[in-house]
Amino acid sequence: MKSLLIRGGTVVNADREQRADVLCVNGVIAEVGEALSAPMGATILEAGGQYVMPGGIDPHTHMNFPFMGTRTVDDFYSGTAAGLAGGTTSIIDFVIPDPQQPLMDAYRQWRQWAEVAASDYSFHVAITWWGESVHADMGTLVREEGVNSFKHFMAYKNAIMCDDETLVNSFRRALALGAMPTVHAENGELVFLLQQEMKAQGITGPEGHPLSRPPAVEAEAAQRAIAIADVLNVPIYVVHVSSAETAEAIARARARGQRVYGEVLAGHLVVDDSVYRDPRFEFAAAHVMSPPFRAKGHQEALWRHLQAGALQTTATDHCTFCAAQKAAGRLDFSKIPNGTGGVEERMAVLWDAGVNSGRLTPSEFVSVTSANAAKLFNLYPRKGCVAKGADADLVVWDPAGTKTFSAASQHSKGDFNIFEGRTVTGVPSHTISQGTVVFAQGELRAEAGAGRYLKRPAFGPQFTALGRKAALAAPVAVAR
Amino acid sequence: MKSLLIRGGTVVNADREQRADVLCVNGVIAEVGEALSAPMGATILEAGGQYVMPGGIDPHTHMNFPFMGTRTVDDFYSGTAAGLAGGTTSIIDFVIPDPQQPLMDAYRQWRQWAEVAASDYSFHVAITWWGESVHADMGTLVREEGVNSFKHFMAYKNAIMCDDETLVNSFRRALALGAMPTVHAENGELVFLLQQEMKAQGITGPEGHPLSRPPAVEAEAAQRAIAIADVLNVPIYVVHVSSAETAEAIARARARGQRVYGEVLAGHLVVDDSVYRDPRFEFAAAHVMSPPFRAKGHQEALWRHLQAGALQTTATDHCTFCAAQKAAGRLDFSKIPNGTGGVEERMAVLWDAGVNSGRLTPSEFVSVTSANAAKLFNLYPRKGCVAKGADADLVVWDPAGTKTFSAASQHSKGDFNIFEGRTVTGVPSHTISQGTVVFAQGELRAEAGAGRYLKRPAFGPQFTALGRKAALAAPVAVAR
Amino acid sequence: MKSLLIRGGTVVNADREQRADVLCVNGVIAEVGEALSAPMGATILEAGGQYVMPGGIDPHTHMNFPFMGTRTVDDFYSGTAAGLAGGTTSIIDFVIPDPQQPLMDAYRQWRQWAEVAASDYSFHVAITWWGESVHADMGTLVREEGVNSFKHFMAYKNAIMCDDETLVNSFRRALALGAMPTVHAENGELVFLLQQEMKAQGITGPEGHPLSRPPAVEAEAAQRAIAIADVLNVPIYVVHVSSAETAEAIARARARGQRVYGEVLAGHLVVDDSVYRDPRFEFAAAHVMSPPFRAKGHQEALWRHLQAGALQTTATDHCTFCAAQKAAGRLDFSKIPNGTGGVEERMAVLWDAGVNSGRLTPSEFVSVTSANAAKLFNLYPRKGCVAKGADADLVVWDPAGTKTFSAASQHSKGDFNIFEGRTVTGVPSHTISQGTVVFAQGELRAEAGAGRYLKRPAFGPQFTALGRKAALAAPVAVAR
Amino acid sequence: MKSLLIRGGTVVNADREQRADVLCVNGVIAEVGEALSAPMGATILEAGGQYVMPGGIDPHTHMNFPFMGTRTVDDFYSGTAAGLAGGTTSIIDFVIPDPQQPLMDAYRQWRQWAEVAASDYSFHVAITWWGESVHADMGTLVREEGVNSFKHFMAYKNAIMCDDETLVNSFRRALALGAMPTVHAENGELVFLLQQEMKAQGITGPEGHPLSRPPAVEAEAAQRAIAIADVLNVPIYVVHVSSAETAEAIARARARGQRVYGEVLAGHLVVDDSVYRDPRFEFAAAHVMSPPFRAKGHQEALWRHLQAGALQTTATDHCTFCAAQKAAGRLDFSKIPNGTGGVEERMAVLWDAGVNSGRLTPSEFVSVTSANAAKLFNLYPRKGCVAKGADADLVVWDPAGTKTFSAASQHSKGDFNIFEGRTVTGVPSHTISQGTVVFAQGELRAEAGAGRYLKRPAFGPQFTALGRKAALAAPVAVAR
Repeated sequence: MKSLLIRGGTVVNADREQRADVLCVNGVIAEVGEALSAPMGATILEAGGQYVMPGGIDPHTHMNFPFMGTRTVDDFYSGTAAGLAGGTTSIIDFVIPDPQQPLMDAYRQWRQWAEVAASDYSFHVAITWWGESVHADMGTLVREEGVNSFKHFMAYKNAIMCDDETLVNSFRRALALGAMPTVHAENGELVFLLQQEMKAQGITGPEGHPLSRPPAVEAEAAQRAIAIADVLNVPIYVVHVSSAETAEAIARARARGQRVYGEVLAGHLVVDDSVYRDPRFEFAAAHVMSPPFRAKGHQEALWRHLQAGALQTTATDHCTFCAAQKAAGRLDFSKIPNGTGGVEERMAVLWDAGVNSGRLTPSEFVSVTSANAAKLFNLYPRKGCVAKGADADLVVWDPAGTKTFSAASQHSKGDFNIFEGRTVTGVPSHTISQGTVVFAQGELRAEAGAGRYLKRPAFGPQFTALGRKAALAAPVAVAR
Repeated sequence: MKSLLIRGGTVVNADREQRADVLCVNGVIAEVGEALSAPMGATILEAGGQYVMPGGIDPHTHMNFPFMGTRTVDDFYSGTAAGLAGGTTSIIDFVIPDPQQPLMDAYRQWRQWAEVAASDYSFHVAITWWGESVHADMGTLVREEGVNSFKHFMAYKNAIMCDDETLVNSFRRALALGAMPTVHAENGELVFLLQQEMKAQGITGPEGHPLSRPPAVEAEAAQRAIAIADVLNVPIYVVHVSSAETAEAIARARARGQRVYGEVLAGHLVVDDSVYRDPRFEFAAAHVMSPPFRAKGHQEALWRHLQAGALQTTATDHCTFCAAQKAAGRLDFSKIPNGTGGVEERMAVLWDAGVNSGRLTPSEFVSVTSANAAKLFNLYPRKGCVAKGADADLVVWDPAGTKTFSAASQHSKGDFNIFEGRTVTGVPSHTISQGTVVFAQGELRAEAGAGRYLKRPAFGPQFTALGRKAALAAPVAVAR
Repeated sequence: MKSLLIRGGTVVNADREQRADVLCVNGVIAEVGEALSAPMGATILEAGGQYVMPGGIDPHTHMNFPFMGTRTVDDFYSGTAAGLAGGTTSIIDFVIPDPQQPLMDAYRQWRQWAEVAASDYSFHVAITWWGESVHADMGTLVREEGVNSFKHFMAYKNAIMCDDETLVNSFRRALALGAMPTVHAENGELVFLLQQEMKAQGITGPEGHPLSRPPAVEAEAAQRAIAIADVLNVPIYVVHVSSAETAEAIARARARGQRVYGEVLAGHLVVDDSVYRDPRFEFAAAHVMSPPFRAKGHQEALWRHLQAGALQTTATDHCTFCAAQKAAGRLDFSKIPNGTGGVEERMAVLWDAGVNSGRLTPSEFVSVTSANAAKLFNLYPRKGCVAKGADADLVVWDPAGTKTFSAASQHSKGDFNIFEGRTVTGVPSHTISQGTVVFAQGELRAEAGAGRYLKRPAFGPQFTALGRKAALAAPVAVAR
Repeated sequence: MKSLLIRGGTVVNADREQRADVLCVNGVIAEVGEALSAPMGATILEAGGQYVMPGGIDPHTHMNFPFMGTRTVDDFYSGTAAGLAGGTTSIIDFVIPDPQQPLMDAYRQWRQWAEVAASDYSFHVAITWWGESVHADMGTLVREEGVNSFKHFMAYKNAIMCDDETLVNSFRRALALGAMPTVHAENGELVFLLQQEMKAQGITGPEGHPLSRPPAVEAEAAQRAIAIADVLNVPIYVVHVSSAETAEAIARARARGQRVYGEVLAGHLVVDDSVYRDPRFEFAAAHVMSPPFRAKGHQEALWRHLQAGALQTTATDHCTFCAAQKAAGRLDFSKIPNGTGGVEERMAVLWDAGVNSGRLTPSEFVSVTSANAAKLFNLYPRKGCVAKGADADLVVWDPAGTKTFSAASQHSKGDFNIFEGRTVTGVPSHTISQGTVVFAQGELRAEAGAGRYLKRPAFGPQFTALGRKAALAAPVAVAR
């Protein structure tokens, strides 16, 4: 019996704060209460003056991802280890089949790649084409493999982009299975045209990247996906919402009572599009990701919608490419591999810019960094909750601790940090994964292969009783 | 010299009312003023107690239209004659090429069909596919044939539906030509899926028609088209807006300063979807058109947006099929030829429900029945205006006259009237086309072939100075 | 030691459902877990097939209320007993001083009236005038008496109406004290004028009541209060939101990140304004309350905003007058005492129309019937939560049980039931208050005086860290 | 007979542009047409390459205004002369009675002050208190004096502020008279509180001015006034809309079909609130006006709503105080006399920032600088229109001319210019008032006393037929 007693801290859950000790036994929380006594041989962690919170869940990462002719530098070990260093104890990554590739093949491939993970992990599976086998494999994945969410790229024409026919069929199938569709919302046809126009105008550098993906391109796709979900009566989750217009589209749908959810990246909350106008190609290219960073005003809008609950989760889209890889687009911005890091920095960025500024309470911080993701992807209360019976995935948070982010000191294998030079107040002092202290006062003790694959059951809590019934019948179009 | 003096009426233009006489000479308005004297031999029309207004423009009709395996019963003669009987002196019809058919071929075919028209007419041209020849023909149509608007069907999968690639390319081309794209906004993929679902549930009658085309299906497509137009910086016109959600999408875009325009049909303003639940197949099927009539609450929303200026024009989508034709869908609602009439009733419906109710002033009535369409399609002030130099296309309106609509007494060759039994107060007493009285106190004197084809120049007033410049360059994505 | 074991049910909290037993000892929950063993002498309650949920909190009641020249027929005993019969175990009532009456006098009077309560209770205190003593008494109430919310009537001119000067001063004071202002949102000047206009037109019956209080009158006041709260940076709670427009105003403010909360009454969710057009005076008058029941379309909007989280709590405004009292307004609707009942029916109405229809999950039902009110008024997790350490206030819910509401069988002393004849599925089988079964299978065992006054600490969770700091400084106007 | 022929220009009206000559005879437009011949003795003005447009109407000025213990430096002569130099040929100023002062006394006083005006003028009359005599005098003003608009200050507590009781009564009275209420929308109670708070915090300089009047203070008042107008069914006009929130409130109401109109000042479109943070008291104080200049983002919103038609008119609130007067607030920003100039610069600012940027077409420029004001205040087509029979008030506009604004060269007697240093392209080359050239190529020939008082009839075009009827009956509350 291996036990850990975290003593003297303030336990924060999504619904409240309380002064309490937390006892972990064999990887699970055995007790939460005042003045708990330590079992024999227990490790004692003094958390006085600190918060004890659920470990973070990053619902959007790409480790070991073959993309745009190259592969991300973080594999499942280095990526999850970086997460642990930042207080994140679970990730949900993506299986992304090539068009025409059987889903199960891709799924098995990714499962194998993930075996080295240091923290628990799970997978969304992307639907990049449509056919009989896709329909069948979706069933297998949900029923046998614990996949309850499917991703759809509305951008990346001539690659992994989904057309409306695929979207409609996949959403319909997801509904029947009790799984939730998610979308990368950008209108790929417009992006493609604008890329051509930019290049025709002689704009080939990274500044062309945001010009070819303006906010309206994102908002259009989000609205389209939301409308399809509305008509089919299936819940929907929009990944990496980056603009005011998209957040407003989600808020409007929610005000109609629709079950729509939105994710925002730590980067979009604090980085703006001036980075693309930096004269150094390396610097600008290192920020190339989609959707791009936006004009300053969008940050305020994203924060407000996060506070208001129109956006529920925070993620990173951690997808790291090095300068040598980014250089592939030196003469053509559309060839720069898209992606930035952040899995290590997310929680501290959120605390510093969210809690310290008074935007979020500590409980709301827990909601947006773990509890909401756990609920939406049906991992709750095993994850996202400090309570008896939950997995002992915890972060001990020092609200007075400070840190300055830098590529030089990060645990990710990437060579760039989009938060470079930012000093935050509020950092993890310890991270606990499966009851083991894997990060302590700056020292990382991540172990390759320690992470487990998380099965996620279908019909999560966003499927109401009626929703469950409806899933079995055809959707009903509702009159106003 | 042929002259007509209209005496003693109240002339109504979009900007004001005034007591004035109107003198027409050789088909053109020669003078508007008080106490005009009649030239020798002039016809005198006493208009005391009546309004003298621009003849109506119906910017959305389908005469002699081959569709869904059959052809509308009204040809260009009977259709325009019916219009004249109702005070409408111009129509804008549609050239609709089959996919792969050269645009110019279709255009010439329709021009020939239209030679029998009794009133002036013009054509929007539909873009139903994309290719080099389409790109070239759009140029020819704009520069040589006076076409300044192109229509895009976002519904009717496996027939005339446009995909996003075509939309994007066509909008871009229209911008460069100074022409305005218009859209039939319904997501064709969703309609297709819902039709299958309805039939799978055993719903094969006309009640399945609105269930397979709910408001969200329309609003999605409208938003998509508006977003594409926004990104490309081209004005856009949404035909037959039928639902609150779509009107709201237009209003939101306009509030951002975008040049978006909306058309509403007389039918959608006063008929609701209960018609589809009528047990008589003939009755229900006769109302099948797309988008369908909506739940009652939408009418109020449409009226409000028309009053507010988010919707600018009124039309009919006049497209008449007889009972024998509608019967093709007796066993499958998706095979019922889509279309209803109205070109004769539109103006009186608008006056009765709009002006008499206090929603619209007479000047606003002129705006929404003629002047706005004339401006948007660049026919103004030749059409849509009672002023010296304008075409002498006029309607003398008797605000006290009444009429009860009926298929039995209509001039259209259709065998059904969606306004059957509705009694209106406010009717045309006389219609004047090209200075000739073609309808007088119930007597129709329409002449086949008297109508002229109207060329409409590119770069209408909705293209600002900057817009004209922008048309020549690539679109510029605008940051918030 | 008095103990109760509830066995075999599904425990529902706001964040999740779980199969678990609940052990209550000495009025407090001692354990929640699987297969708990019963202490010696424990009462056993078998809850197989049922839900075990937090007892309801009705945050808006008026027991023993002297109003409009009469007094409600339910005193604190009969009112709270009716609540227990319906699964509601706490109420928050109102102390309403007369203008110029010292707050502390009124507070003491109400405390005395409440001593007979059968369930726990608390008080909001109304600010009906402004002065030095009011400022001082607010401090005393918050610091010594556990009052953390102050009510403001924006209607009832020449009686308890607050003008803007009082609103502004009271909100500012509440902020400094860490208390939350609440408002009855109706523009009293407009109501007054419209009442005169109606009577001038000869409309003296109950149908004049809704005509003198249209939705815009409510939305205006709500927007005003929200704007004042925004400028002063204080959270705000709008009681009995009855119209789409008001809910939209709240949703708009929330989308800006403002901490605004809304309450909806069970009655407004299911009763419409046709009741006022009933020819029987007694029937129509029995429904007179403010804001009035609304046109049908508003119900859908209220439900959607409740689902979306723009509205967080459900209440009743339980305020019962008998036919003899209502008769005071027989010749003048403005003299009909305003008020209706509902404290007994609220939870079953919400379950039947909300959960059974698929709008709400059981967890969301708990949120809107108890947990959210407990959080906003800082009673959580003592109330609103089934967890170790919480008060043993519970309801055992039988989702298959049915009941038909009727004045004849209700426990309230009122002689009317606005839900008369409505049959619901889903009813409380047992209610537990302070660990004692006070309602069992239809048998009510309420005990006068058993209820306790609940002190509610200042600075509830809606006050963020920054908010707490800000409370001490002057408000800061924020630029866009 | 005095005649003037303007030859070779492009005549711009709100509805279109045309190449035409304009002949003015005896102060009135005698003809608009191609190749007009000049009567004997006519003055010829060559306008080749220029636009000939209606002279501007500034619907919001304060000449010779006694305010905050001092009086504006521009009297009706210097103020209107400055207007003429900028192409503005009519102003609508304000009669502002002291509370308790009989309206007719104030009206006569202002009429006398205005006798020296160089251009035509009219008056809105402010309602600053309520009583029997106010009710009666409103009738006299409308019926005998040609006043059809009444102003209400919702700010300036303890001075000219209207409470809700006065608002409600005055709006109701205006409806019955066919006059339009207008409002200065700021919540005076909030302004008062915030002024105290700022001073309590030691903020006494001009930077405290915008901090005490944030956008929410304006939006609240606008929404309140709009809601009151909605309930009473009277049109309403919001003066000097300065913030996005207020413009959105107007747009929302318009989308409901309500007849709400908004005015925006040239200053608010191009000047931002950084001016208040300038360390020079004189500079900052010179910009003190209410509502204040706003954060940059608001300008974009105002432009968009102007383009979209939610705002219809542009004005200046010309109200000039010199540095010596502004110095009264050196130790207390709330004592700085509120007001800035602009009557001379408005049109060129609008052309340069509106037309040259592509936001507005020339026709839209005419709409927002003259035609819309003329319509709303029922001066159209006598003013705001280049047409036969209209007053010969014209501006000949040189789109290529440039000018740099400066206090040193302005015609206003003020010693400051909020547009100082701004160089515009597009300026008036000639201004014609009553058929006389009063400004030519920089030379001002204004004549004191040449201006005439303009009577404006009740029941302007925004009163529909039903509205006119409704004016006589009580308002009807409308259900949703």
